[in-house]
Amino acid sequence: MEQENRNTSPALSLEALKEAFQGYKEKGLSLDMSRGKPAPDQLDLSLDMTTILTKDDFENAGTDVRNYGLLDGLPEMKALFADILEVEPDEVFVGGNSSLNLMYDTVQKGMQFGFPGGEKPWKDLPSVKFLCPVPGYDRHFAITEAFGIEMINIPMDENGPDMDLVRQYAESDPSVKGIWCVPKYSNPSGITYSDETVRQFAALKPAAKDFRIFWDNAYCVHHLSDTPDQLLNLMAECKKLGSEDMVMMFTSTSKISFSGAGVAAFACSKTNMDYLKKLISFQTIGFDKINQLRHLKFFKNKDGITEHMKKHRALIEPKFDLTLSILEKELTGIARWHKPNGGYFIAVDVPKGCAKRTVALCKEAGVVLTGAGATFPYGKDPNDENIRLAPTYPDLDSLKQAMEIFCLCVKLAAAEKKNA
Amino acid sequence: MEQENRNTSPALSLEALKEAFQGYKEKGLSLDMSRGKPAPDQLDLSLDMTTILTKDDFENAGTDVRNYGLLDGLPEMKALFADILEVEPDEVFVGGNSSLNLMYDTVQKGMQFGFPGGEKPWKDLPSVKFLCPVPGYDRHFAITEAFGIEMINIPMDENGPDMDLVRQYAESDPSVKGIWCVPKYSNPSGITYSDETVRQFAALKPAAKDFRIFWDNAYCVHHLSDTPDQLLNLMAECKKLGSEDMVMMFTSTSKISFSGAGVAAFACSKTNMDYLKKLISFQTIGFDKINQLRHLKFFKNKDGITEHMKKHRALIEPKFDLTLSILEKELTGIARWHKPNGGYFIAVDVPKGCAKRTVALCKEAGVVLTGAGATFPYGKDPNDENIRLAPTYPDLDSLKQAMEIFCLCVKLAAAEKKNA
Repeated sequence: MEQENRNTSPALSLEALKEAFQGYKEKGLSLDMSRGKPAPDQLDLSLDMTTILTKDDFENAGTDVRNYGLLDGLPEMKALFADILEVEPDEVFVGGNSSLNLMYDTVQKGMQFGFPGGEKPWKDLPSVKFLCPVPGYDRHFAITEAFGIEMINIPMDENGPDMDLVRQYAESDPSVKGIWCVPKYSNPSGITYSDETVRQFAALKPAAKDFRIFWDNAYCVHHLSDTPDQLLNLMAECKKLGSEDMVMMFTSTSKISFSGAGVAAFACSKTNMDYLKKLISFQTIGFDKINQLRHLKFFKNKDGITEHMKKHRALIEPKFDLTLSILEKELTGIARWHKPNGGYFIAVDVPKGCAKRTVALCKEAGVVLTGAGATFPYGKDPNDENIRLAPTYPDLDSLKQAMEIFCLCVKLAAAEKKNA
Repeated sequence: MEQENRNTSPALSLEALKEAFQGYKEKGLSLDMSRGKPAPDQLDLSLDMTTILTKDDFENAGTDVRNYGLLDGLPEMKALFADILEVEPDEVFVGGNSSLNLMYDTVQKGMQFGFPGGEKPWKDLPSVKFLCPVPGYDRHFAITEAFGIEMINIPMDENGPDMDLVRQYAESDPSVKGIWCVPKYSNPSGITYSDETVRQFAALKPAAKDFRIFWDNAYCVHHLSDTPDQLLNLMAECKKLGSEDMVMMFTSTSKISFSGAGVAAFACSKTNMDYLKKLISFQTIGFDKINQLRHLKFFKNKDGITEHMKKHRALIEPKFDLTLSILEKELTGIARWHKPNGGYFIAVDVPKGCAKRTVALCKEAGVVLTGAGATFPYGKDPNDENIRLAPTYPDLDSLKQAMEIFCLCVKLAAAEKKNA
């Protein structure tokens, strides 16, 4: 490693960088750090859940979880998600395996039917806009883009979105109907919204009475530190001000139990819940309660989840540490990043105008990254600088190789630009 | 039973019927035959599925079923549904636990985005209409009503919907965008569409190029006879005529494995599949593949499902037989019904104008039935005569009591009307 580090040190010439790049290319590697996927050993942590239920569990469940019914989920599962999201159990709706699906469906319901407080369904308005803190989650942006909702970039810093800008847009323009937020260990920057940011969200007085904050708390229990970030409770802050109808919270066990077979939920005020439950009652008779029972028996309660997440941390923290140490060694002074206390990503700002080229070079050398621009609406990073790294899926050896190639490609892209 | 039969024979006076009714009322019963729910002993048939997976199954699955991915389901699960629906595996999309959810989402996608062949999303049209064979499934009608789609009644007979009327509406009016069908062991009448009916569906030349046949084959393997009904394959018939883009097929294992935790699927042409997969890729990364693997290991193949359905039949056929024998004994000459060869329901036509009153009387006597009118769009049965009986959930003793009360209430309602 020492040898390679010297070879790719920032001081190297364009020619030397090209030569090192050629060396990696010839290795014919195939590495993927594009998506925030748990590694197989993380999924093994919950494997016992798949065989945990016995006949007795079904008999003692209070309701026949195998049959139709209970649209909003098992009461015990609602209580567990309420503990995680710090809301009341009757503010929780338990869905299927995908919180993305719940978010999509909620935006679709805004389009088709509107929301309490609004004058008409969003589909019947000449223009609908969403605020999009950037960099953000590409799948959020894909949803709003699919619905033809205009997306407005809101820059983020270490405290969260630029709240002056959020306020300015939301309070002046009634066509601004929502904002996408990943408030804790944000995807991709890893930051957690400050208390002041959360309070400013709660204090918003949007021009649109059906404005909704899509609060995707995907990483609420996904710590990578003994001193985890603390996120102020948006619902509680809103209740102090009577603005709780703005809040739509989402989370899931996708990165707690199984990414493909977890349990997702949303939480909202009684007004929103009554409204959405009525609409969802046309859509389904209920979601998979056996899988809810399985999760309940395996995790028992929030403490069970907290303990379980320590096992995840033990598996993925070395990957984050390795990634950060290579970044520090190779790209200090060249690129910028935030050391996250949790979540699944590290967002790197490479030199302006070099992100697309870096990702293309990486691909040429056999390393697939999240597409440059993916962390911005319409895939357009105005500075062409942000790249999302997802260190969890590869094993440590692959990750080390991928990161060395990544750092080399950043330098090569920067040198090419300088020499252009 | 003999005693009671004499008490409630058709020849009894209004006073005698009222007296018998009062006798039941005083018993303070609480019986429910309102919904087509499997009984607990039916759900027990699949209980072993909940613990069937072992670590080896995950290792040998070919893909990590626990992780993200495979939007349209496990290839083996697609193949199994293809066998059941008599289509090709790549014409199958495997979803979550609810085919109703898939149907709702498909109509919603028509509203929001339109369908191949259409000029614009249905939401942007001044009027959208669906044809609704009646009596039909209340949850179908609830979906179209929720979207503000105008519903047009199409009378059914023992061969299926009145195809002259279907053709007349579909071929003359471009705002007619779809039709709801339960082609086999229809909900609620129990009839199966004749070959000629299916052929006429395939030969439709709708005015709307984005007209879709919502073919809810919920009861495709749910036989109650050694000589089950045969349903001609709509997809195959359409392919002969090049009209396969009209077909949206749906089914699920809800009444094969678990009503709350089964696996649902839709099938359609490549044109529709490409279009829908693209749209669904914004909605979710994929559905629960562990549950798909569980179903695959338990049922193995279509033969496994056929064998399993024989066990269901053994449990529910006595309930259908009992229901039919009581109907025959008590209501011959008063009401009409069809003896179904499969499915979950018996639809009874009571004397005109007596359905609402019968259901209300039953409720008073402690028997909850599906609401009168529920089998028609907008809950409006023009003749107020159709009542859906769902015999599967109650045990035989409860069913016998409920049916005796039902028959008494039909007679009482009829006698009241005559004497009014």
